[in-house]
Amino acid sequence: MLEYKAPIRDIKFVMQELLGCEAHYQRLGYQDATVDMVDAIIAEAAKLTEQVIAPLNQVGDQQGCTWHENGVTTPDGFKEAYKQYVEGGWPTLSQSEEFGGQGLPHSLNINISELFSSANHSFSMYPGLSHGALATIEAHGTATQKQLFMPSLVEGNWTGTMCLTEPHCGTDLGMLRTKAELNEDGSYSLTGTKIFISAGEHDLSDNIVHIVIARIPGSPEGNKGISLFIVPKFNVNQDGSIADRNGVNCGSIEHKMGINGNATCVINFDGATGHLIGKPNRGLKCMFTFMNAARIGVANEGVAAAEASFQGALAYAKDRLQMRSISGVKNPDGPADPIIVHPDVRRMLLTQKSIAEGGRALISYLAQLVDIGHAEQNVDIKIDAETKLALLTPIAKAFLSELGFEATSHGVQVFGGHGFIKEWGMEQLMRDTKISCIYEGTTGVQALDLLARKIIGTQGEILKPFSKDVTAFCQQNMAVPEMAEFIQPIMAYAKQWHELTVSIGAKALKNPDEIGGASVDYLMFAGYVTLAYFWAKMAKVALQNIAEGSDEAPFYEAKIKTAQFFIQRMLPRAKGHAACIENGVDSMMALDKDSFAF
Amino acid sequence: MLEYKAPIRDIKFVMQELLGCEAHYQRLGYQDATVDMVDAIIAEAAKLTEQVIAPLNQVGDQQGCTWHENGVTTPDGFKEAYKQYVEGGWPTLSQSEEFGGQGLPHSLNINISELFSSANHSFSMYPGLSHGALATIEAHGTATQKQLFMPSLVEGNWTGTMCLTEPHCGTDLGMLRTKAELNEDGSYSLTGTKIFISAGEHDLSDNIVHIVIARIPGSPEGNKGISLFIVPKFNVNQDGSIADRNGVNCGSIEHKMGINGNATCVINFDGATGHLIGKPNRGLKCMFTFMNAARIGVANEGVAAAEASFQGALAYAKDRLQMRSISGVKNPDGPADPIIVHPDVRRMLLTQKSIAEGGRALISYLAQLVDIGHAEQNVDIKIDAETKLALLTPIAKAFLSELGFEATSHGVQVFGGHGFIKEWGMEQLMRDTKISCIYEGTTGVQALDLLARKIIGTQGEILKPFSKDVTAFCQQNMAVPEMAEFIQPIMAYAKQWHELTVSIGAKALKNPDEIGGASVDYLMFAGYVTLAYFWAKMAKVALQNIAEGSDEAPFYEAKIKTAQFFIQRMLPRAKGHAACIENGVDSMMALDKDSFAF
Repeated sequence: MLEYKAPIRDIKFVMQELLGCEAHYQRLGYQDATVDMVDAIIAEAAKLTEQVIAPLNQVGDQQGCTWHENGVTTPDGFKEAYKQYVEGGWPTLSQSEEFGGQGLPHSLNINISELFSSANHSFSMYPGLSHGALATIEAHGTATQKQLFMPSLVEGNWTGTMCLTEPHCGTDLGMLRTKAELNEDGSYSLTGTKIFISAGEHDLSDNIVHIVIARIPGSPEGNKGISLFIVPKFNVNQDGSIADRNGVNCGSIEHKMGINGNATCVINFDGATGHLIGKPNRGLKCMFTFMNAARIGVANEGVAAAEASFQGALAYAKDRLQMRSISGVKNPDGPADPIIVHPDVRRMLLTQKSIAEGGRALISYLAQLVDIGHAEQNVDIKIDAETKLALLTPIAKAFLSELGFEATSHGVQVFGGHGFIKEWGMEQLMRDTKISCIYEGTTGVQALDLLARKIIGTQGEILKPFSKDVTAFCQQNMAVPEMAEFIQPIMAYAKQWHELTVSIGAKALKNPDEIGGASVDYLMFAGYVTLAYFWAKMAKVALQNIAEGSDEAPFYEAKIKTAQFFIQRMLPRAKGHAACIENGVDSMMALDKDSFAF
Repeated sequence: MLEYKAPIRDIKFVMQELLGCEAHYQRLGYQDATVDMVDAIIAEAAKLTEQVIAPLNQVGDQQGCTWHENGVTTPDGFKEAYKQYVEGGWPTLSQSEEFGGQGLPHSLNINISELFSSANHSFSMYPGLSHGALATIEAHGTATQKQLFMPSLVEGNWTGTMCLTEPHCGTDLGMLRTKAELNEDGSYSLTGTKIFISAGEHDLSDNIVHIVIARIPGSPEGNKGISLFIVPKFNVNQDGSIADRNGVNCGSIEHKMGINGNATCVINFDGATGHLIGKPNRGLKCMFTFMNAARIGVANEGVAAAEASFQGALAYAKDRLQMRSISGVKNPDGPADPIIVHPDVRRMLLTQKSIAEGGRALISYLAQLVDIGHAEQNVDIKIDAETKLALLTPIAKAFLSELGFEATSHGVQVFGGHGFIKEWGMEQLMRDTKISCIYEGTTGVQALDLLARKIIGTQGEILKPFSKDVTAFCQQNMAVPEMAEFIQPIMAYAKQWHELTVSIGAKALKNPDEIGGASVDYLMFAGYVTLAYFWAKMAKVALQNIAEGSDEAPFYEAKIKTAQFFIQRMLPRAKGHAACIENGVDSMMALDKDSFAF
């Protein structure tokens, strides 16, 4: 069984040394978020995840959730662990003080989330969805809605969900059928069936607040007729206390490849009372508040999975004796060398490590952009941050979930046959992480959001703020001899990124399918270049610390060597993606749909 | 649930039109193997797999196998299906007439195996391992051993296993501890524990013949002291009938990520009677007879999985309505277009299709090489074929299992959230296929076999016969205008393959770790080029048929378009692998083992 250790040293490196979190917090007015405070919070989160949450990961997979007529029972220990989570005040961390929160930066919650997700993907989804529900109500709800629903969600005694998908529509939400009819008292009556509702029913909290999209009869067809509602499992009295049961029921739970500890529910709304959030027919826009936050969360799951799998694989690779090193015996006293001596095992470990640590840097940077979006007063800085966030969110979501999944697959390979056996926990990480490539918009959907909606849709404008940062960093460091090995390739690939964008844009004028044909390869290309940039920035910090005579030289040297690995052995994969893009979409579209099989 | 249809038209295309199987059979003296005979056999195999074997795939996954003190019970229906398999004479197909077989070519059995593996990976492993056991006894056993063990194995009333792995050694078989002590009667007494024994115990057959590697006390250490034994579950009387129970017991079965319908056993040998195969201490060499055959079988599992997943994804992509095509509405009467209109969905489907069909061509070619190895009289032709087989077996095993796994992952993505739900069957294909990247030597082990042992080990000599074929094909077709789009890239990549080989060889002289550092990327590069060559050959056949006015033009046009997709959108991935190889091993070896994590 895996033993999870929170990567505290690396988190500090990213938050404090790479991203100067204290100055960032202070500038945004988060006076309480000192380095000491952050350290203490991370240490506590490490303790909770290592000692309480991680030990429930395997049992959650084995037992799964149990549906019964009155609800869903979570696996043994989940209820007690969630109680500890609430008692520890974790749900309140980044929430507004007005509603009982601690008022700490949102980024801190994102940083902490990685630990929970590494420890137990399924468990972490229960509180994870509450954050999105809270963000949606806070951004778009009325004062009354906030008063009624937020305090208990912040406290963690209630949890939230996001109800979008229906049996016949997932990506294409404009087709939804759940209807919301206006009641005399101004509330709505919702009827319809939603599927794939994570944490849709469970026994961890007193109430579940569903954020639901539905159609008000007479609304325009498609995306322009979608409205958003708060639909609680139990209705809520004016004083915020729980009233009668609402017409919301869990019809069944899914049997899945992974995340078995989380209940994925069919939720039936039978004339359930709902409360409109925002204006009628503007629901999809409001929903994006939820989805953008959720997408960063899913990107973080990729990082978390890479980290967890790396830890397991590293321990095994040091312990498992098999074959001798081709360059000479390394363990003469043993019957064979530990497999970590073999280059291909190292390739897999370093792939995992560079995904986990590089991904952590990217996520932590996005988390700071989220903070700026929330708290920055200067409009130009705020818009700059939001533009970068809009660009990098789909990249992070798809690239890090795909690479996180790849990392878990390497973890299985390092274990050989043992990796395929449930007992070791490595295959569970693969099964759990596959969902991250699917939910909150598949990799294909993220790629279209990036390339079609955001890049082609803004004629490339959206690229500029981030691109400017990359260029500035390269220019500042191109004359630094130790940085040349990082800067030169990044400049070349960044140039190619720009050329690919221009070329796809030109081709799309003649054939709009060129966008879809290039989209996933384009996103992956962008992902490798983006992560390379963060690796170069980390190398820079490490070089500085070594130059200043740090007594942690081995840590910083490892950072530089991992950066070298990423630049030399991961970034070149982008060449394959570029070459595929350059060959265009024709060979994808040529086949008639009836000619795919005979 | 998936509905499997054997891809009969494509199998005929590959066997008959691409590889001229009848002429091949006739030349080798397989007079009975006419095209009509082959067609009839494939039609029967299609019927059996579609109607009997495939419907048991999901139940096998859900129920798994059950261990009890007296043995292992297979999932509901497996026993009856295996009975039908035996009654249909399937185990006898390619076996020697001398021992009750039908004496048909080995290749035919390999072609048929794909159908069984697509239909039900777990089920197909039960008979699959018998073939290897038979091949080993036939190649290395005494006349008495053949008479005692082969007829029942051929008939299928007994099944076989391969017992290599022990808890502390998998790849590194030289470390094995199972000991075999000589008895007075010339038999041996085996004691030890083997793990990961597929089909090690079950209720399908009357006896199980374990092929076991063990160490005779006093043997040299390491690989040079390994001997091979036949150890039956039940001892066998001189007349071939079953005698008393041997000291072989199944201690437990594993709980695994996939292939749950197949019993993966811990097998304890407690003074079990064994019969030496071949000479003492030459067991590993004999074992390779088994393993080479098994590796082609595993490569075929990758093809089979890609085919099965493609079939599921294609049906869903035609049926599922979601979003409109960016290039204009394609299904004006429906609420949305079928997702097969979207370029990225087509990318995934064509990736699956090009892996399945390209892989099928490669496997069928290898199967013919196996035939030549068995039946060719001309020594030069035989050596030429065996050299190609030695080169291409590790490429096929690792490349097709990795790409087969990738294909199953695309299958899940095409289904979106539904792909993650067990009911649809898509995620099972992923879980089942992951083992193909592990057993019979992981991808990393195959890559070392290819690059270290075979290519560097022969100073590139092993490449020549296959390379000559590729060059000859390119030269013959470079002047054919319709072939230029295939031939030009293949020539360029084949040249780069050669350059990479030379460059790695040169670097390895200074640092032998360069081999391990390059190995997996090198194998993948070789895999893409090899499959591109087979796609070009298939395009050539298709072009000829169209030129000759075939009334199956849509089939042949689809072949050409899929070849174009492979060349334009799959082959360029090799560029990424080449660039990684060119950057060398230094960044992999730089990190001290204690500096991987802090």
